[in-house]
Amino acid sequence: MADDRLRRQMTFALAVDREKEVFRQTHLSGHGRREDDAEHAWHMALMAMVLSEYSEDKVDLGRVLMICLVHDLVEIYAGDTYAYDEEGKKSQEKRERAAEDRLFDLLPDDQRAFFRGLFDEFEEDKTPEAHFARAMDNLQPLTLNHSNGGGDWREHGVFWSQVMGRQERTREASEKLYELTKEILDLHADEGALRDDRKKK
Amino acid sequence: MADDRLRRQMTFALAVDREKEVFRQTHLSGHGRREDDAEHAWHMALMAMVLSEYSEDKVDLGRVLMICLVHDLVEIYAGDTYAYDEEGKKSQEKRERAAEDRLFDLLPDDQRAFFRGLFDEFEEDKTPEAHFARAMDNLQPLTLNHSNGGGDWREHGVFWSQVMGRQERTREASEKLYELTKEILDLHADEGALRDDRKKK
Repeated sequence: MADDRLRRQMTFALAVDREKEVFRQTHLSGHGRREDDAEHAWHMALMAMVLSEYSEDKVDLGRVLMICLVHDLVEIYAGDTYAYDEEGKKSQEKRERAAEDRLFDLLPDDQRAFFRGLFDEFEEDKTPEAHFARAMDNLQPLTLNHSNGGGDWREHGVFWSQVMGRQERTREASEKLYELTKEILDLHADEGALRDDRKKK
Repeated sequence: MADDRLRRQMTFALAVDREKEVFRQTHLSGHGRREDDAEHAWHMALMAMVLSEYSEDKVDLGRVLMICLVHDLVEIYAGDTYAYDEEGKKSQEKRERAAEDRLFDLLPDDQRAFFRGLFDEFEEDKTPEAHFARAMDNLQPLTLNHSNGGGDWREHGVFWSQVMGRQERTREASEKLYELTKEILDLHADEGALRDDRKKK
């Protein structure tokens, strides 16, 4: 029989399967269904592989990928909180901390520390790798939403300034990707998918 | 406006979204819906992070993750071929080569070479990183199917020897994970989810 260490690792490997049942507000391209967290994490990691040359600081791409892969795991127990849901965001940290304990405690001690370290690095957002993962966390849904004419913003009545407010993190990671983002957001404000409050800014 | 290089990269980033619409024969745990390729790739990569200590040879984990993330991309155009679909497997290589050209040609030249390199490394299966990614490609669906009482094998009338035949690749990557796999397959042959042809072997 498998020993206790391997058994714990396999229990964790099965538990994370539930990330595929956490659905986000973003829709797949071609006006498809809503995307789940596992798909989002995979897509972010793949985009990091293609775009890491635009990072302001040199990044360890392997670590960026690991951060992308794990950054939403706690939503298995805490649920997804939409970026512009101000009410949900109030309880988000508490829910996610409890979920972090529950999920990572499945692992052997050394791996618990390793996975928590990756998760906390993303949350604290102080390293170039975390900055770049954050930029992908912004740019991936934006890419899909842009391809769908900004429908996700339209549905939720999102203001241009709300989306732009989140992009400082992308700017910290990459001026080039920030410029691309701003170009896309201005287009959707021009076309009415984003509520246009640019004059106020 | 974004320059031509960035535009090509973003075209690729959007094209890969379709991997979320390629559905596999494996069902999610809890007798859920069928899994898609993007979810499978994410789950394989995450399992590699947890299990890489069992690799027979030291692996560059970052490269294992990259191989996991890209290994099914060509199925966007070529479709998924079930591991035990002998008819489909006859045309698989030709379909996948054509798809590889179509997909990776979206990228700038240097990145096309890099992504093809990862994809070919998986296909050729000669490096420790490719071996380990192959082992995850076996173990990830097996983990889900095991949790569902072997339902996917039962549905397709799969023989114990067919699954075991694929596990030589897992053995090459990791004796420990091979033993775990064999234990699981024997259990499902005992319980009737796998058609039991063990005596013939």
